[in-house]
Amino acid sequence: MSALTNESEEHLPVRTVAIVGGTHGNERSGAELVRLWTERPELVRRPGLEVSCFMGNPAAVEANRRYLERDLNRCFSPDVLAGKGDSLEERRARELNELIGPRGSDKAPDLCLDLHNTSSNMGLTVIFNYLDHFTRKLVAHLAANEPKARLYYQPVDNSTSEFLPSLGKHDLTIEAGPQHHGTLCADLHVRMEAMVHEMLDFCAAWNRPGFVEPPKRELEIFTDLKNIDYPRDENGRVSAMIHPGVDGMDYCELPAGAPLFLTFDGKIVWNPETESVWPLFVNEQAYYEKGVAMTLTKKSIVEW
Amino acid sequence: MSALTNESEEHLPVRTVAIVGGTHGNERSGAELVRLWTERPELVRRPGLEVSCFMGNPAAVEANRRYLERDLNRCFSPDVLAGKGDSLEERRARELNELIGPRGSDKAPDLCLDLHNTSSNMGLTVIFNYLDHFTRKLVAHLAANEPKARLYYQPVDNSTSEFLPSLGKHDLTIEAGPQHHGTLCADLHVRMEAMVHEMLDFCAAWNRPGFVEPPKRELEIFTDLKNIDYPRDENGRVSAMIHPGVDGMDYCELPAGAPLFLTFDGKIVWNPETESVWPLFVNEQAYYEKGVAMTLTKKSIVEW
Repeated sequence: MSALTNESEEHLPVRTVAIVGGTHGNERSGAELVRLWTERPELVRRPGLEVSCFMGNPAAVEANRRYLERDLNRCFSPDVLAGKGDSLEERRARELNELIGPRGSDKAPDLCLDLHNTSSNMGLTVIFNYLDHFTRKLVAHLAANEPKARLYYQPVDNSTSEFLPSLGKHDLTIEAGPQHHGTLCADLHVRMEAMVHEMLDFCAAWNRPGFVEPPKRELEIFTDLKNIDYPRDENGRVSAMIHPGVDGMDYCELPAGAPLFLTFDGKIVWNPETESVWPLFVNEQAYYEKGVAMTLTKKSIVEW
Repeated sequence: MSALTNESEEHLPVRTVAIVGGTHGNERSGAELVRLWTERPELVRRPGLEVSCFMGNPAAVEANRRYLERDLNRCFSPDVLAGKGDSLEERRARELNELIGPRGSDKAPDLCLDLHNTSSNMGLTVIFNYLDHFTRKLVAHLAANEPKARLYYQPVDNSTSEFLPSLGKHDLTIEAGPQHHGTLCADLHVRMEAMVHEMLDFCAAWNRPGFVEPPKRELEIFTDLKNIDYPRDENGRVSAMIHPGVDGMDYCELPAGAPLFLTFDGKIVWNPETESVWPLFVNEQAYYEKGVAMTLTKKSIVEW
């Protein structure tokens, strides 16, 4: 029994759902889905659920860029929400907090879902920040219906989070990749769309009187350890690439001492960790500017 | 015997080679190779050859963006080279024309090689604009040494070309993909590096007295037909994705009437061509702004 499971099993209804796409303007799957569902809201209507769709950063979507002034998905810290900062994205974060939240209030939606794409080979990844009973059952259901889905647990405190989906009482992010930012991969798009429909169906069923929770099943959960940067030269310039044995190998075991980077003059940089880790967000384009070559995680098996 | 082969077979030496990387600032393989070879010129030195390396668009490389004001690789038209236009890239094109060329003059290098990356699944693609004897022998040699190389013939008149490598008497572009713009894929990087070394070795051998040309071999050549755009709605907005059966299938036969696009509400748009075509640059990120969903080509077999 893992520490990831020792939470209350109280069954509380989930009546209001906010779906956000285009939080990053060049991650086009979510932007196009939200555009479709805003034009045709009947597609996301479910009995007993109140579903609202939001375009996260319309100006960045228009420009087909991640953001214009600051990464919107790092703008939901308490000080920004309280009024600090005047960039386009900081102002938009406060607007979204009013429209969707306010965070931490009774008006906040029961569930906030944020739709993202990544250039990393992460398939359909479900990211969750809390481990309450509903979230565990929801991610177990999504994994059962999309066998290639990956589950990434990133522990973050709701009240101090910088991330958009923290506006909900429960949160979920779906990452779909690899997709080149600014483009659309139809296969990933259709699978992300199907996963959102699965999520809505599950919420509607969850609220129904007499709902019987599905039996527990074994799941692989990847829990955030830390981010690591590229090797850099004395001027701070990236001096190596992800090693070919690691590039594209998100969620694969990286043993201690395995090749990790390859310098431009052909030298191997070895993994300095002393135990196996499981990298993800490997070679994510948008993270070069953040000094992140990949995120390292630990794999655990849980019964949810 | 294809029309692609009826050219003179005169054997003329190739003594000066210009290698350019970073023509697009976020296509990082060429930028890093040119940086390495500028620091360590002995790596590209060959007997009887004069090899020079140039960073195409240093400001865009610094910013990790394709370009700052205008696509540099469309700035080599006669009017821009003659002084028209004052964007950063138009000024840089004139500078490069002085540094490398001038185009069409005796001082122009015998061969100008431009290194690019693409987000499309094009592997290592050799692009050539002329069909002279040296070019045919060079691409045949490169294909023999990198069996997965693809050969793309894009007929362009040297004196009116907009492309950077037209600064050389012979020209060549290497495209390596799929690579997310702004990132580096080590596997592609190492293969591109090897191909440049093959090219230099071939040029040095070509100039040697008594050089015996390799026997002719059969090659697949893909010749440019036209570019096609995405379907668009009444507001000009892209309304469909590349169909999953075509996405990532660069250089694969697309029959007349096959599925081509998939609209956001799930409808198939069929290929309107009346004969098979072979698409490339499928879903290239940088071509969304150019209104290009893919380039259609015809496949031919030649003996070079």
